[in-house]
Amino acid sequence: MRKEMEGFKTLTSVDKALQILRGILEKLEEKDVVDVPLTESLGRICGENIYARFDIPSFDRSAVDGYALIAEDTFSASPSNPIQFKIVGSLMPGDEVGKLEINRGEAVEVMTGAPLPLNANAVVMAEDAKEVEPGLLEVYKQVHPFQNISRRGEDFQAGKLVVRKGTKIKPWHIGALASFNITHVKVFSKPKIGILSTGSELVELGSELKISKIVNSTKALIKALVYSCGGEPVDLGIVEDEMKLILEKIKNGLKICDALITTGGTSIGKRDLVPAAVSRLGEVLVHGIAMRPGKPTGFGLVEGKPVFMLSGFPVAALIGFNLFVKPTINVLQRTVDEPAPKIIGRLTRRVASLTGMRSYLRVKVSKHEDVYLVEPLRLTGSGLISTLTEANGILVIPENMEGYEEGDEVEVELFDPVAESLMA
Amino acid sequence: MRKEMEGFKTLTSVDKALQILRGILEKLEEKDVVDVPLTESLGRICGENIYARFDIPSFDRSAVDGYALIAEDTFSASPSNPIQFKIVGSLMPGDEVGKLEINRGEAVEVMTGAPLPLNANAVVMAEDAKEVEPGLLEVYKQVHPFQNISRRGEDFQAGKLVVRKGTKIKPWHIGALASFNITHVKVFSKPKIGILSTGSELVELGSELKISKIVNSTKALIKALVYSCGGEPVDLGIVEDEMKLILEKIKNGLKICDALITTGGTSIGKRDLVPAAVSRLGEVLVHGIAMRPGKPTGFGLVEGKPVFMLSGFPVAALIGFNLFVKPTINVLQRTVDEPAPKIIGRLTRRVASLTGMRSYLRVKVSKHEDVYLVEPLRLTGSGLISTLTEANGILVIPENMEGYEEGDEVEVELFDPVAESLMA
Repeated sequence: MRKEMEGFKTLTSVDKALQILRGILEKLEEKDVVDVPLTESLGRICGENIYARFDIPSFDRSAVDGYALIAEDTFSASPSNPIQFKIVGSLMPGDEVGKLEINRGEAVEVMTGAPLPLNANAVVMAEDAKEVEPGLLEVYKQVHPFQNISRRGEDFQAGKLVVRKGTKIKPWHIGALASFNITHVKVFSKPKIGILSTGSELVELGSELKISKIVNSTKALIKALVYSCGGEPVDLGIVEDEMKLILEKIKNGLKICDALITTGGTSIGKRDLVPAAVSRLGEVLVHGIAMRPGKPTGFGLVEGKPVFMLSGFPVAALIGFNLFVKPTINVLQRTVDEPAPKIIGRLTRRVASLTGMRSYLRVKVSKHEDVYLVEPLRLTGSGLISTLTEANGILVIPENMEGYEEGDEVEVELFDPVAESLMA
Repeated sequence: MRKEMEGFKTLTSVDKALQILRGILEKLEEKDVVDVPLTESLGRICGENIYARFDIPSFDRSAVDGYALIAEDTFSASPSNPIQFKIVGSLMPGDEVGKLEINRGEAVEVMTGAPLPLNANAVVMAEDAKEVEPGLLEVYKQVHPFQNISRRGEDFQAGKLVVRKGTKIKPWHIGALASFNITHVKVFSKPKIGILSTGSELVELGSELKISKIVNSTKALIKALVYSCGGEPVDLGIVEDEMKLILEKIKNGLKICDALITTGGTSIGKRDLVPAAVSRLGEVLVHGIAMRPGKPTGFGLVEGKPVFMLSGFPVAALIGFNLFVKPTINVLQRTVDEPAPKIIGRLTRRVASLTGMRSYLRVKVSKHEDVYLVEPLRLTGSGLISTLTEANGILVIPENMEGYEEGDEVEVELFDPVAESLMA
């Protein structure tokens, strides 16, 4: 035990760890797909390329309220030189295509979205014309062919790619697919992520609480993170710090999961049995990462499936999750991260960082007039979940920096709203 | 009808419309709250201030693997001047508080998270000490009182605000609340937003489709937008362009909804009956907004509830929704917008805009080395949902600009991932 307590011999850099992770992820097969109703597909990852089934619009239609006519008949029309047309009918959206037909000198009143009468090739806007007596129209402006017309196929031509495989389905994708009367889409099954908590001090949320025990809040955090990233958490329970139990839980968990997260027991103390357990079942690829919080983070491969060893401390677990588990959930569904909100702000005080370590500093960003102020909370305290609930951003301090000075401009990734807007 | 087809007499500016909207929203009562299990609260809006029920940590505990002792005993310890301690036991996380006690010259082995023995006031890290023979410890580094200890209440002190009312519940809030063994939270009921589609040409998604009819894709889009913003859409169906039907649907819809959206029929043509209907039932406050797309957008108040008249065209409807409906859903739950991802990029070509109108240009942002390139898609074409599925960002062109030149640096709000990352 003395040897084990001497600290990590070497630490892997974050970039190197990510490179090793990519090596694993490249070999992961994509999840199978399931058919879901379009109306329930919001936020899921599209599992197929979906192409336009027909042209949209499906027919030339009026883009404005006005009068459909033959463009050539309007040439030279102006307020001082109105041109007269005979109104031979009117068309509404939903009217049958080909219901009416016009000849030279004739016009049909059309509402936005209405099909054009046969032979018409333009629409003059209502405000550029006037029905001077019943059935007699004066046009004050010339229009060119196809003016004010939404042409067939202008939005989507049949066969065009509408939603690409791997796209996270947003409201506009649902709108576009609905246009084609598509009622069901194939989406990737949610990656199943096992969560195994280790630690004899932990009790489940809602248990009777004794002073020496603590609620397994990290599991609640990790589960919610898995949901947020589009995965399905599988609760593998809490296991005591005993090798036999840990081995069994990991083995059984991997039978039903695509990847597995352990929390706790991943440092190098007497009770830190997880890395040894992963070694026995498969291979530990990274253990001990040059970052803080989260130094004891690691991952390995067991029967082709990634096993992530995260800290039992909530903040360290979150950093490890975002760095390593989130990309895994993405790759299983062949998708990528959503864009992250970032701001440039000014540090309110100096922060020191250890060179050689990548630091994830929780900060509180507020807005004063047009300036973002960035207040560092704590760099240390990987157990302090209050630094997450009080912070609204993360400032990453790279390995080659000793920190930042007060007043330095820094880029912060926001994960919660900025204070000022709370006053609005 | 001629008069009605002459166009909007005046347009309200976007800012003025928002100011009028705020006047309405100030008077809206907040939604009632419901009790949900903590594990199902992700993404809901917290409906109460939640305070720390007890101190966390609940007792002083070791922050590292090492040896708990009395700090004063280590003074002057160094590698060349080790100080010896008698090891009198060991403590693990989960062990009972007060289980062991030490006297001067004694130490207890502790794992991270373990309670301290009585009388101990510091922990020396494992790497700074060595058990030279069974039960005999040599310490090579002095520690000061409370060093390497997570002190009681360091994370949360009893009574401290943990989650503020109006907070959108994120994984870290769930983690924090779980620490207090909180199993249920009060969240705001989801605002019920009625959606009434007008247009004789519309058919429901999944219906048999005739050439002259179009699927009500705007409803699918709006429903998904309501879900995305934390509301509950209430489908009020499609109504033909007939005043009596529209009046009835709005009246009945408002009986069960907190606010109502109509789509279509909001321009100034013959079939645009919605503004008149809202006028009859209550008051139209804004109709015709100086923006594009979305000029015919408007809203009013009927029996104290907001009614939003959005375009039937998907892009215009989306712009109107984001500007006016989203803040309404927020206010009903006393919450604010999440931070939006924005980038600064370089326009690939000139875009013209009408002065006096605020324009929402759909753009496609890609990354080339370290530069974001911003390719304008179309400014017009409020019906072209392809401009949303092809775009990944929106560039707002203010009223006082005639547009931007090629190469101009512009700020773009991203709503989908940037192309380069798709290759990663």
